[in-house]
Amino acid sequence: MIAAEREMEPKMSNKATTVLEAHPMNGGDGTYSYTKNSYYQREAANVAQTLIGDVIAMKLDINEFASSSTNAFCIADLGCSVGPNTFVSVENILEAIKHKYRSECMSSQTREFQVFFNDHAGNDFNTLFAKFPPTRNYFAAGVPGSFHGRLFPKSSLHVVHSSYATHWLSKVPEELTDKNSPAWNKGKIHYTTAPEEVVNAYAAQFTKDMAAFLEARAQELVVGGMMILILPAVPTGIPHSRVPNGVMFDFMGSILIDMAKEGVISEAEVDSFNLPVYTTSPKEMGELVERNGRFHIEQMESTSPWLEIKHSNSDYGKTLSMSLRAGMEGVLRSHFGSEITNQLFNRLCDQSGQLTRQLQESCCREGTQLFVALKRI
Amino acid sequence: MIAAEREMEPKMSNKATTVLEAHPMNGGDGTYSYTKNSYYQREAANVAQTLIGDVIAMKLDINEFASSSTNAFCIADLGCSVGPNTFVSVENILEAIKHKYRSECMSSQTREFQVFFNDHAGNDFNTLFAKFPPTRNYFAAGVPGSFHGRLFPKSSLHVVHSSYATHWLSKVPEELTDKNSPAWNKGKIHYTTAPEEVVNAYAAQFTKDMAAFLEARAQELVVGGMMILILPAVPTGIPHSRVPNGVMFDFMGSILIDMAKEGVISEAEVDSFNLPVYTTSPKEMGELVERNGRFHIEQMESTSPWLEIKHSNSDYGKTLSMSLRAGMEGVLRSHFGSEITNQLFNRLCDQSGQLTRQLQESCCREGTQLFVALKRI
Repeated sequence: MIAAEREMEPKMSNKATTVLEAHPMNGGDGTYSYTKNSYYQREAANVAQTLIGDVIAMKLDINEFASSSTNAFCIADLGCSVGPNTFVSVENILEAIKHKYRSECMSSQTREFQVFFNDHAGNDFNTLFAKFPPTRNYFAAGVPGSFHGRLFPKSSLHVVHSSYATHWLSKVPEELTDKNSPAWNKGKIHYTTAPEEVVNAYAAQFTKDMAAFLEARAQELVVGGMMILILPAVPTGIPHSRVPNGVMFDFMGSILIDMAKEGVISEAEVDSFNLPVYTTSPKEMGELVERNGRFHIEQMESTSPWLEIKHSNSDYGKTLSMSLRAGMEGVLRSHFGSEITNQLFNRLCDQSGQLTRQLQESCCREGTQLFVALKRI
Repeated sequence: MIAAEREMEPKMSNKATTVLEAHPMNGGDGTYSYTKNSYYQREAANVAQTLIGDVIAMKLDINEFASSSTNAFCIADLGCSVGPNTFVSVENILEAIKHKYRSECMSSQTREFQVFFNDHAGNDFNTLFAKFPPTRNYFAAGVPGSFHGRLFPKSSLHVVHSSYATHWLSKVPEELTDKNSPAWNKGKIHYTTAPEEVVNAYAAQFTKDMAAFLEARAQELVVGGMMILILPAVPTGIPHSRVPNGVMFDFMGSILIDMAKEGVISEAEVDSFNLPVYTTSPKEMGELVERNGRFHIEQMESTSPWLEIKHSNSDYGKTLSMSLRAGMEGVLRSHFGSEITNQLFNRLCDQSGQLTRQLQESCCREGTQLFVALKRI
């Protein structure tokens, strides 16, 4: 192949030059697996199920896709992890679409559906594939790779869904670990109570990542196609220190600092670690979509899954720390190693009563989740 | 969903009612992995690479796909295992297609390519995904499931490739293990030197499986799309006992019978085991394609990869037994358990000199591979 042609070829994601950080959820189905410890993510998704059904019923125009009616109706779940939540979401979306066909007296009977399950290449796809619902009525495929780059051909998807995934950053902003930068995040692992420069560095990275995400999806979705995003959020104007994510990450940070004080790890190890996650606000998200310019906001709504969760359950704190472990263990282990990470989560489990109290006392439980439905224009 | 509608919906493969036997190649990248022990499969595939390039150049009509030029050009490799062979084959096919575009002065520069890698759900997709070529110029997806059923939406593929996979049967014919059947395969693990009833039972299963395979692909390929199959073959008229597969499977069978005589396993264990693989002939394959009626045979050619392999290499016998282990260990382990299977392959390795001699003395080395190129009509 001649060099000029190569340059003209479509750029695929995940080339050697664009390797992004990947921190998959815990694989397999053991004690600490995401499969067995994704209760909170499921609760959060449940709150969104009705919204998804409604927005598809009211805003998705299936007539726009009629011209390509011989082709399959294609759906992608981005950041699907290992199940089972992804299967519940996909089933819900499919039912809403089929209901739509019925309500418009169109036949969905001859229409075939293809669902793409995406996550990082390091995700445990073997476990995901082993758990595919045996009675599913769709063709299924796994797509490994970062959703911050292109994953699918142009105009090949009709609906994109992503729940609790787009708050993961593609990388930790470099200045956070640069001692000479005003954004050096000493003694912290997140931005909750950090100086403004740290918050700004996180926000700038999220802006870049969301821009790349929206640009890639704008190319992959057909015109009229819909994208539904569910992600943790901070109500506009509320400080990060008062939302559940802020409280939980701060709590984990304080355990690591205790471990540094006890000499179990060094201060430098804590200083050089930062969680690559960011909690956006409705205002910020709206601005990023506007700036991209290729989507119309059909619905943007704050929801409150934390009001639904049974906080009175005596196992609540423990369930919560197991859930945090399933989601966060990978990123911590790659920095601190297995032994320290085990110790961190054992301490978190022991102190889960205290975490529960902090969440109950200081926490703003309303509007901590954002439901966004966009239409490709 | 109402029952009538469910019945009308397209049937996907791998439902609970159609669970098929799955015997993936050895996963991971350890000593006995398929990744490290697929030299013979690669040699065999190499023989076919030139043929693939030529048949695409001469017989694939890309103008037929021009009407859907906004869509991606979709390729599937069925029975891909864990690599690296699948990546070599896919790259070869892609180069041939791009060369075709160039030679017809059409632009392939704006055309996007999507490649689907298929194998059983039990295949080690995590290893496959970790080995995806970082510089690839195509979108990639993994599709778990049996190729004896539907895997893809209607008319969604342009080229299908399958190398050394379609000789695996979907199951062992039941009569082979029925003591009251004339096809009871006592004291053997394959049909090489077995009674005619056993050979017929194997052939009948292959007929059923190939019919299901061709019917599914006929639905999935666009009109004008091409399917390339590479599979072990027996030259029409030559007995199975004289082709390499026949000699090797017989040799494995004789080791198991030795183990039964020594009391390591029972005779009944050997009697109840049969290898679910079948070696077809050009005549038989041609008839099956004709019977399906939805493909035109563009090329069917016997090739001779065994003539290319360096039999003089002193490691030859050992390499061969490692290769057999990587491909066959799974199916043997699920019947005999790990310990017996280990012992079988250790004995095979110890006796590999004898196997080599048998292959050199009695074996027909010409025409042991079939290259089939079909066009969807």
